[in-house]
Amino acid sequence: MNDKPKKPQKLKARLPRGFVDREASDIRAVNEMTAKIREVYERYGFDPVETPLFEYTDALGKFLPDSDRPNEGVFSLQDDDEQWMSLRYDLTAPLARHVAENFQEIQLPYRTYRAGYVFRNEKPGPGRFRQFMQFDADTVGAAGVQADAEMCMMMADTLEALGIKRGDYVIRVNNRKVLDGVMEAIGLGGEENAGRRLTVLRAIDKLDKFGPEGVKLLLGAGRKDESGDFTKGAGLNDEQVGRILSFASTAAAVSIEVDAGKSLPANVSDNDLSDWYILDEMQQSFHEAKGAVDGLDELMTIWHLVRSAGYGIDRIKIDPSVVRGLEYYTGPVYEAELTFDVTNEKGEKVVFGSVGGGGRYDGLVSRFMGQPVPATGFSIGVSRLMTALKNLGKLGADQVVAPVVVCVMDRDTESLGRYQKMVQELRHAGIRAEMYQGNKKNFGDQLKYADRRGSPLAIIQGSSEREAGVVQIKDLIEGKRLSGEITDNVAWREARVAQVTVAEADLVTKVREMLAAQAEDRKQGA
Amino acid sequence: MNDKPKKPQKLKARLPRGFVDREASDIRAVNEMTAKIREVYERYGFDPVETPLFEYTDALGKFLPDSDRPNEGVFSLQDDDEQWMSLRYDLTAPLARHVAENFQEIQLPYRTYRAGYVFRNEKPGPGRFRQFMQFDADTVGAAGVQADAEMCMMMADTLEALGIKRGDYVIRVNNRKVLDGVMEAIGLGGEENAGRRLTVLRAIDKLDKFGPEGVKLLLGAGRKDESGDFTKGAGLNDEQVGRILSFASTAAAVSIEVDAGKSLPANVSDNDLSDWYILDEMQQSFHEAKGAVDGLDELMTIWHLVRSAGYGIDRIKIDPSVVRGLEYYTGPVYEAELTFDVTNEKGEKVVFGSVGGGGRYDGLVSRFMGQPVPATGFSIGVSRLMTALKNLGKLGADQVVAPVVVCVMDRDTESLGRYQKMVQELRHAGIRAEMYQGNKKNFGDQLKYADRRGSPLAIIQGSSEREAGVVQIKDLIEGKRLSGEITDNVAWREARVAQVTVAEADLVTKVREMLAAQAEDRKQGA
Repeated sequence: MNDKPKKPQKLKARLPRGFVDREASDIRAVNEMTAKIREVYERYGFDPVETPLFEYTDALGKFLPDSDRPNEGVFSLQDDDEQWMSLRYDLTAPLARHVAENFQEIQLPYRTYRAGYVFRNEKPGPGRFRQFMQFDADTVGAAGVQADAEMCMMMADTLEALGIKRGDYVIRVNNRKVLDGVMEAIGLGGEENAGRRLTVLRAIDKLDKFGPEGVKLLLGAGRKDESGDFTKGAGLNDEQVGRILSFASTAAAVSIEVDAGKSLPANVSDNDLSDWYILDEMQQSFHEAKGAVDGLDELMTIWHLVRSAGYGIDRIKIDPSVVRGLEYYTGPVYEAELTFDVTNEKGEKVVFGSVGGGGRYDGLVSRFMGQPVPATGFSIGVSRLMTALKNLGKLGADQVVAPVVVCVMDRDTESLGRYQKMVQELRHAGIRAEMYQGNKKNFGDQLKYADRRGSPLAIIQGSSEREAGVVQIKDLIEGKRLSGEITDNVAWREARVAQVTVAEADLVTKVREMLAAQAEDRKQGA
Repeated sequence: MNDKPKKPQKLKARLPRGFVDREASDIRAVNEMTAKIREVYERYGFDPVETPLFEYTDALGKFLPDSDRPNEGVFSLQDDDEQWMSLRYDLTAPLARHVAENFQEIQLPYRTYRAGYVFRNEKPGPGRFRQFMQFDADTVGAAGVQADAEMCMMMADTLEALGIKRGDYVIRVNNRKVLDGVMEAIGLGGEENAGRRLTVLRAIDKLDKFGPEGVKLLLGAGRKDESGDFTKGAGLNDEQVGRILSFASTAAAVSIEVDAGKSLPANVSDNDLSDWYILDEMQQSFHEAKGAVDGLDELMTIWHLVRSAGYGIDRIKIDPSVVRGLEYYTGPVYEAELTFDVTNEKGEKVVFGSVGGGGRYDGLVSRFMGQPVPATGFSIGVSRLMTALKNLGKLGADQVVAPVVVCVMDRDTESLGRYQKMVQELRHAGIRAEMYQGNKKNFGDQLKYADRRGSPLAIIQGSSEREAGVVQIKDLIEGKRLSGEITDNVAWREARVAQVTVAEADLVTKVREMLAAQAEDRKQGA
């Protein structure tokens, strides 16, 4: 840290790679979104809790995002007392620490939510940042899959609360126990194969992105991407690759091959046909694998619970290709996918894809404790979801009206005091306003500032107006009114002239009136 | 990082020192506060902008909080490409980088606000955390002190918007130019004395905390605190110490010695007497120091502007003891102080003190640029202000009603499906509700859970109720109704019995009715 290069004459202003500044419209959009998400989570009986950004590295433990490179993938540093601390890479591991640390005071089941930044020390890329926001909900101390079913329904409700239409999203559900059973059946059981199992899971997770051919490579020897970077594969033989692929592709296969020929149990409707087929297919293929059978039972229960509560296959469905990339999941896993098409940077139409997900992590709290503590929860990628909502036009342009600008015509202390008084009167009346604070003395330049700022009105008082005890108010968006409306409403038209002169005492009243007229215009124009 | 000790059998769940988890009521209180602060800043014509938590260490530069220990005081780590990055220690240095980096696109004056966590790699102590939240507002590109005057008024309005009464706070204003002039006059001018000047400033800043005797030590040889830790002093001689102390104590001295004997200019009211005295006193003492005179002129202008806008000495006043501990201030500095007494951890009555402040930092953006970029702004310490508001009873207890709990009487999939359906119906009707997700099968235990959670109602359906197609609703806060109200309102009384049985189809209607009755109770009881 002390052997830094000689200081250049002028410092370079730049952000570290993979980090971005956020502008007003994005911040307001995120606030709007998180308020809606929070409303749904609260309605489901969840309460907020928050942890700091640092944790001891050992508390994040072996559950680092990239287990191939221990302690990489996170930002870490050593504290004064030599202990390693890391910035959280998700909101789940810190919650597990929080629950374990406060276990005596916490009442189970513990239903909480939290929004905050997480950090990944990874290679940044387009749309891939090293700091991003997640919004999580978790239930700790709930062993039954009814808690997982609830999470799936809450994800669905959240997306609809944000304005995403039914049919434009789907919650896909799978179970790690089934996947683990499949892997056991092909000889990947036991502690010694943990690393390979994770590689297999991550390969399956890429099915959407790389297709069956790409995943085949990742399951086998490995895959070289377009940039020439090589990702080492799981090293499975052809038969193993085939079985994994056929399992993961069941959903896709069924949705193509489904026909009404099969007899269904009485409580399965035609609508659920493909789901039922999938469960049936999974059961037939993998009944030999112990664990997989339990996992299938749990999937059946989830399927039943969500259907009972009125959530059809258009909202929540079984899909064996869902894995979730993190190692700590132990049971049901679920993913929220947006199903509409968007155009990617190459100009191709692609499905928007995942905006969040989660699953059951029964081991994450227990490793601090002498007892099992089951838990389940999910995470929404806030920035990614914001991009989606912008695509759908569900986050309106910046709705905040820019401030009224009080121009500075004279710069002696006496005059500045008068302008200051005006602007404070406007503010105290609840009107967004500012006195021009720049160094442009020219009136035209100040108007240009107000215009670029999108200000609705400018207030002007030169020496002659001051002597007469009046101010001028200039309407800066006069051009936007709807001409059709004008003939209908003479009184309103009279109120909307480009510039009016009023007594200083009437400033607030007149400004309020003109802003109301502009608001009416916007409403008419909307 | 790789030579970590052997993994213990059980991980210890603990937070790194100086970091804390935040619970629901604090999170809700902060949300309530920041919404009110945001409202004021928006009304003043400021827009949000946000920077990430990391900056390159050199962008924070020599403006580290503790310049005695270069690169200490912040959390730093080296990126893959060997560059040092640090977590931001305030929100001002990152804003300066942001403005410089985007100078071509940004329109000046640039009026923005931001809230976020900042980090200090310091020794944690009681009430002294290494991660805390600040809420800042800044105007970049405004050279005139009218921008500083506006900041002072905005701080005052913000505190009042949060419910702090006029008289319970004051905004104290000073000017670094005056202080610099004073230091120059006693021979501390020039680049070679920069470190000592900062030590002097920090010593003056401690006047409230340590009193004149303590500050005398800090200006001289040094001071040993109660724990035995020694802080090295500025090494001034007795005469220098005397002049600094007499300057910094002017405000205190004047407020004691003020009398009406002096003649005042026509535009100075009796109320402003002490302020005027201070300015006069400062002028008389330090007219010999160049720079100090400019500084006093600026203070006079600020004084005039805030008075013109109706902000009296009860809200904004001149105080030569205000310095602000950061090195980067170049002109007016201002501090928001809460003046009411609180009891500290030793049981002593003390003035609550500073909850925020700021000043002009004309050099912070310019060091990236080839041109001067004046700027001013302030920061509110959110957690500290929250503590103050709690002391004043201005942040009510948690107002959020806990969820209705649907008890789980039978655990077969069929029954779970029915409970799930009920809870979803309640939620979709906008009612906060949850199905019991724990493993307690006993009804009494589930009610205990609901009770500890503060739930208003419990929904019960055992097998006999199910056969009859009904549910029981138990009012869990029946004891809280006001007995006086009951005789006045027979219909209402009839609605409020401890437990009712209704048809399943009427669940939502009845629950809504009972919640409304409870809300009415709370209103009556408030």
